[in-house]
Formats: sequence, C-alpha cells, structure tokens
Amino acid sequence: MSIRIGILGYGNLGRGVECAIKQNDDMELVAVFTRRTPETVSILTQTAKVYSVDELINKKDEIDVLILCGGSATDLPAQTPEYAKYFNVIDSFDTHARIPEHFANVDKAAKEAGKIGIISVGWDPGMFSLNRVYANAILTYGKDYTFWGKGVSQGHSDAIRRIDGVADARQYTVPVEEALQQVRSGATPELTTRQKHTRECYVVAKEGADLARIEKEIKEMPNYFADYDTTVNFISQEELNEKHSGIPHGGLVIRSGKTGWNGENQHIIEYSLKLDSNPEFTSCVLVAYARAAYRMSKEGQSGCKTVLDVAPAYLCKQSGEELRKHML
Amino acid sequence: MSIRIGILGYGNLGRGVECAIKQNDDMELVAVFTRRTPETVSILTQTAKVYSVDELINKKDEIDVLILCGGSATDLPAQTPEYAKYFNVIDSFDTHARIPEHFANVDKAAKEAGKIGIISVGWDPGMFSLNRVYANAILTYGKDYTFWGKGVSQGHSDAIRRIDGVADARQYTVPVEEALQQVRSGATPELTTRQKHTRECYVVAKEGADLARIEKEIKEMPNYFADYDTTVNFISQEELNEKHSGIPHGGLVIRSGKTGWNGENQHIIEYSLKLDSNPEFTSCVLVAYARAAYRMSKEGQSGCKTVLDVAPAYLCKQSGEELRKHML
Repeated sequence: MSIRIGILGYGNLGRGVECAIKQNDDMELVAVFTRRTPETVSILTQTAKVYSVDELINKKDEIDVLILCGGSATDLPAQTPEYAKYFNVIDSFDTHARIPEHFANVDKAAKEAGKIGIISVGWDPGMFSLNRVYANAILTYGKDYTFWGKGVSQGHSDAIRRIDGVADARQYTVPVEEALQQVRSGATPELTTRQKHTRECYVVAKEGADLARIEKEIKEMPNYFADYDTTVNFISQEELNEKHSGIPHGGLVIRSGKTGWNGENQHIIEYSLKLDSNPEFTSCVLVAYARAAYRMSKEGQSGCKTVLDVAPAYLCKQSGEELRKHML
Repeated sequence: MSIRIGILGYGNLGRGVECAIKQNDDMELVAVFTRRTPETVSILTQTAKVYSVDELINKKDEIDVLILCGGSATDLPAQTPEYAKYFNVIDSFDTHARIPEHFANVDKAAKEAGKIGIISVGWDPGMFSLNRVYANAILTYGKDYTFWGKGVSQGHSDAIRRIDGVADARQYTVPVEEALQQVRSGATPELTTRQKHTRECYVVAKEGADLARIEKEIKEMPNYFADYDTTVNFISQEELNEKHSGIPHGGLVIRSGKTGWNGENQHIIEYSLKLDSNPEFTSCVLVAYARAAYRMSKEGQSGCKTVLDVAPAYLCKQSGEELRKHML
C-alpha cells in the first residue's frame, strides 16, 4: 500500500513536492489543500484532489503524512504545531534562530497526539546541517566553512524590487573562488562576510529612473548588501526573463581538520550541491523525510524530530537488507 | 563519566584509534589488547595498559565499547561475532560482498548478549555508503558515481612487492580528471573501469633486476592492473621513503539526478574526502560510532547496526538541544 501524502500550500514548494511524489512509486498524492478558492488551483496529478484548507482536519484519516509547504515567517510557526495534533507532519522551517522554539512547540503537540513531526527539512537547514554534524563528529579538531551559491536569493531579489524605480530584479549569491580554494587547500583562514561571498544583481529599471541612485541604494542597503562586494547590472525585462528566470542554488559545506597524536595529518571533508531548482530539490528532501516519518510513526515513535534524529535507512524505499547488499 | 574504550589490534588502525580518542574528551582509552607479547608493544597513552588478547574477556566490565582494529580477510569475520557476546563492538569490515553474512553473524551474537555491534564503519564502506543512501533517497531518478583517490592502495602495493626483483613499491589510485569533469557537468556517462581510474606505481627494483620484465608483469597483472592505464616509475628506496611514505587517500561520491514533472531540472550532489592518512581518518569515524554504540546500548538497543541505522545525533558529544541550536 502506498504512503498517502497531503500537501498544504501550492506555491513553488508545493508543486515541487507534487513532482517529487511522482518519482517515488511507494507514495501517492491524495490531496492539495489551499487557502485560495480550490477551483482556481490547477494541479498536475490527475488522481489527486484540491480542497480548501478548511477541509484539512476532516481528511485526517485519509492522509499518512502532511507536507507543509508554507513560509517560515508566519505560516509554519502556526501550522506545524497545529497540524501535528492530527497528522504526521514535515516542514522546511528555515529561520535558524527560532528552531529551538519551533521544535518545542511541535514536540509538545506531536507527543500529545502520538504523531511524528520532522522540522527544518531541506538543504540548509537539512542536508548541510547533517554534513556539519557528521564532519564535526569525525574531525573534532577542525574548522567549518559553509558557502552558498551560485544561486538566487529570493529575499535579496525582493529587497531590490522594493527600491523606487525598479521594475524587476534577480540577485545571485556567489562564493568567492579564492576563499574556496584557500579552504580546500587545508588552510583554515578567518573569513569576513565580504571575503566569502559576492552579490550579483540584475535589475530592470522603470523608464526614466535614476540608475545611479538605484545602484547606490542597492550597494548601501544595510544587512542585505552593504557588507558585500556587490555588482549591479541593468538589463531589459526581456533579458531578465530569458536568462534569469530559473531558481538555481547550491553551495558547499567544508570541514578541515587535523588528526594524529600531534595533529600532524590534515583532512578535508567537502559536501556540495549544484541545483537547477532550489524548491524542487528541497521538495525531494521533504518527500524522503515523509517516508521516514511514516515508518517511525508505524514503529510507535512520536514527537518532534529533525534530520539529525533520523537514521538514513528510514529515507529509502529499500529494506535494510537490500541497502546493506547494494549500497553499503 | 568517560566512555571507556578498548582497542583490539595495534597496527596503523589501532594507533589511529588511540590518537582519535585523545581528541574526544568524553572518552578514555582503557587498554590495548594484542596478539603479540604485551611487553613488546609500546603505546602512546600513558594512562592505558597493554594486555594479551587472552585477557580480553576478563576485562569486560571495565570497557564500554571495544573497537576491533584487525583485518577484514580473517580477523574480523571471527572476532566481531565472538566479542559481541561480551562487549559493544565496532569494526571496519570492508569486504562489501560479505557484509550480509557478517551482519547476520554479529546480529545473532549481539542480540543474544544484549549488546550493540556496529560493522563496516569507516569511509567506504561508511561515509561513502551514507552519502550514496542520502543522495539516492533524495534524487530517485539519477545515477551514482564513486571515484577513489588520489590515494595509496595497500593491496595493490603488496601485489607489486610480490613480483620477483621488486624490493619495495607504492601504488596510487587516481581518478581520471576528464571523467570527473564530465560527471560534474551533469552528463551521466557509462564509464568503464579504465575510464574512471588510472594506477601510478613507484617501484624500487633490486640490483640487476630486469626492469622491462617487472613493468610488463605489473601492467599485465589480472584484476589488479590489466584493466587500467598503469604507469610504472622506477625510483630509489631513498626517494620512495622520502616522497611516498604517507598513506593518503580519499575520493568522491557523486549523484546526478533530475527532478520536475518531466525531469526538466538537473541536480548534482557531491561528497568528497581528501585524507592525509587513510587509517587515521577511518579511526576517527570508528570512534564517533563508538560513542553512538555506547548511547544506543544505554537506551537498551541491541543487535547489529551499520552506519545506515544510526541517527547522526548519536555521533556527537553535544546534546540534541545544543545541536539544534548551533549545528542545524
């Protein structure tokens, strides 16, 4: 029998989860729940239904795992603890500083209901966190580096779009190649924000807008750009649409450490991702952890978990025996 | 209280484990057990003792986890199931084809004794297996590539040393850069053995030996060299000692996969290791899993496990709360 999945929220992430379910034949998308009028939401899976979010709790016996595809700012802090009362839930909550609080809320609700909630699933937090933990556990004397990109930052793109005179914009975060090479060589430099990443902006200005002022406002914007070497390129809407409509991302987690009685040997562990579609990759991670939630729940486990609490074998369709034979 | 560790076997791996324990302040090396005369074995840790292997079972109440540092050919298939009757055990059994059988033997012994046995811990099998499993669970439509090196293969070095006229030798396995670039670019080629790795040999010939014959014997040796592009360099013993006395290794696990409703987006997951000392890195992995075995045993778990069955949080000294706050 298939694992029956529900999706709450049908933006880029919800659609990505739908696509990922198609690639996992032990799973079935039962329904998408939306805050919009259901009739206006058109999904790809012919066998699944679209319902209003108001119907969600009524469907609790038809769904094994609910994947929450809302945002971390306001949706997930409320939704994940709320729906953990009725469902095994997965979310991609990514506000690092608020994870302990979110964990506590979801843990309480999930334990009371006897459900599993896996939070902060994706690639950072998520696969990058895993790799930091594994690498730190192995090389206890060492230093971590995380680089992001080359990839689109939605938050930074939005910040540029809010500037007066800007019609559209796309911002890429790019690791500084020299810093990367330095770290890979085994050096363990202290790197400033500016030394680690640059920011590339592609901006469509409104007709008659003051380009020099826009460029200055971008480059001096606190938190977002002021601490980085930022380049601003003004291009046409056509060029933006043609060359910058994707949502690529990725990055690297590197740990450089020493072993031996006197630290005489050097080791480098590197994990890297190159992603054509940030939301689709995140969705694939969510779906793998939905399988884990289903299995852990079947075993009688409950409460809030993160990727750090889930043994890798739970993520794969194959049995432990098959994994040992073919993947170990 | 510290986790009390015992080491069985004091070669490169046993010594590496001793060094790794020094880097983990929640652990303590209690004793090294050896098949040699204990008085002839000199260890680095002043607070630890050296005993004959005959004493091992008598010390079972003084040791929380026993790390088995023998070889996979004959030592571990016998030792791991035997000592799982008395201890939580960790080994680095690396004969991939025999893992299912070894697992079954250790599982039976460990379950009967209420102990934990974690087998095939290291980097391949071990960290590479983990990365294959994670990457396959996430990108279900895709292709895996594992490259080894640049690194020393002990087995291949030994094979050269057995040739008549050879005084000493060191063999490096080297990934083919073009194949690597091709895979990283997102192409998913079918690669032959020859297209993935080359073999570099550094050979010290005995005085008056026929170099042409030695080179031919190496290059035509079945299984070891015949399927590879092999280069043979004759050098002096001094040069071998000076430039080739280390035991570096490493490699890469890459998965290239597609997502989207029609597979329209491409993703690359890459995990790579660059290791100055193969045995010391393996030892660090063994020690992290010793911590996991200790904790899982304290929770009342028993039986045989592999890295695929161990949640990452068990490996770290930090609490779940600390990990969520700082590493997620």
